Amino acid sequence: MLIGKTTNTNLTWLAGQLTHAGGLVRRALTVRDEINEIADALTLVFERHPNLLVVSGGLGPTFDDKTLQGIAFKLGIYLSVNDIAVGLIKTRVKELNAARLKMAHLPFGSRPLRNPRGTAPGVYLKAGRTHIFALPGVPSEMRAIFKNSVSSFLRRTFELGELYEASLLLFGIPESRLAPHIDESMARSPNVYVKSHPLGIEAGRPKISLHLTSNTSQEDVEKAKRTMAAKIRRLGGIVTS
Amino acid sequence: MLIGKTTNTNLTWLAGQLTHAGGLVRRALTVRDEINEIADALTLVFERHPNLLVVSGGLGPTFDDKTLQGIAFKLGIYLSVNDIAVGLIKTRVKELNAARLKMAHLPFGSRPLRNPRGTAPGVYLKAGRTHIFALPGVPSEMRAIFKNSVSSFLRRTFELGELYEASLLLFGIPESRLAPHIDESMARSPNVYVKSHPLGIEAGRPKISLHLTSNTSQEDVEKAKRTMAAKIRRLGGIVTS
Repeated sequence: MLIGKTTNTNLTWLAGQLTHAGGLVRRALTVRDEINEIADALTLVFERHPNLLVVSGGLGPTFDDKTLQGIAFKLGIYLSVNDIAVGLIKTRVKELNAARLKMAHLPFGSRPLRNPRGTAPGVYLKAGRTHIFALPGVPSEMRAIFKNSVSSFLRRTFELGELYEASLLLFGIPESRLAPHIDESMARSPNVYVKSHPLGIEAGRPKISLHLTSNTSQEDVEKAKRTMAAKIRRLGGIVTS
Repeated sequence: MLIGKTTNTNLTWLAGQLTHAGGLVRRALTVRDEINEIADALTLVFERHPNLLVVSGGLGPTFDDKTLQGIAFKLGIYLSVNDIAVGLIKTRVKELNAARLKMAHLPFGSRPLRNPRGTAPGVYLKAGRTHIFALPGVPSEMRAIFKNSVSSFLRRTFELGELYEASLLLFGIPESRLAPHIDESMARSPNVYVKSHPLGIEAGRPKISLHLTSNTSQEDVEKAKRTMAAKIRRLGGIVTS
């Protein structure tokens, strides 16, 4: 990602999952495949004592898959062969070799998570109050482990509320003309958060996506959306969804 | 991005531009639209004393566009109306209002950068040894300002080397079997860095992209690529590019 070869769709997916589960994603970090960089990034993360850290990538068999080494280095613990991880890997491959055995070296105290779509197991461990899930970088594997092992853990462990949302796509009103009406909507309905995403100019008209969210009810969101849509039409804008 | 509504293609593009210009992108941070979060992220950035910081997003007219407030807060300086920025904005809109004037409030000492595709000017300022470019989040505007104002600045300011690269797409060899051959290639040609990107399983066969880079010459990269492709074919793999 830091050389521009891959777009971080894993963040989009994970952030969506966590947000819809009622979580608040505070920050995302992308770092190079170096132990020091990973450990340094973890220092920054742990300073904030988050409930949850989800790491994606760097669990594979090649020399530059260093996530678990970085975690172990930061936590001051050793990597050692985890027998359950060895068993999980053996269900996916005919024979073990050094590269495959590397994927069974987990930070001491970790729990391996079955990977139904690939060889490298996911890893769970806890550091202080932070639950850490390390998942593979391949999107299909990351999603499969998340759905199998992370979702239910989050539901069991955190008492998360529901998130209600609605979207609205509009044309013909520049964001700077819309801004005071967003402020007005949030003053009138403080429990509905309104965020504008400018999408540039299309056919000579500004295109903006509005995203409304609330923790209270879908009705509140829909009501704020209707009011906002009516306002935009009165200003001469076009609302398409 | 942290609610899963938008994928960070700006990072992909910026990282590609900076890498091809010979730069090394060490880290990317994604934060919420809150002044404290932005300032806190900047603390983490400045601790590392990077030569360059490129920020994208949060320069627009709405209440949640807080990038410049976050920068000013972190640097302990004030935002004030920048006359050149006012002039740039006036070339894009018929009349000023409070929301538009907000986009001309820059951290003291900043230089506004003309936005040929939108209203919000980009912003340049220097903090310690770090050159900071704040660009809009709308991709077309971000790219236009980067090409107009950032690229030439980087060429003038840093003596950056060239990056040579090649890619190779292969099927049929799992990454764990490939791993020792990547190690071997890097031992034989230490000036060519080889990175594997597993792309999952396609039609029952593992699919992997190999990315080779070097600072020395295109010939070195091509030679390592040919050697690697021959090796993969001997192992029974299929090389498609």
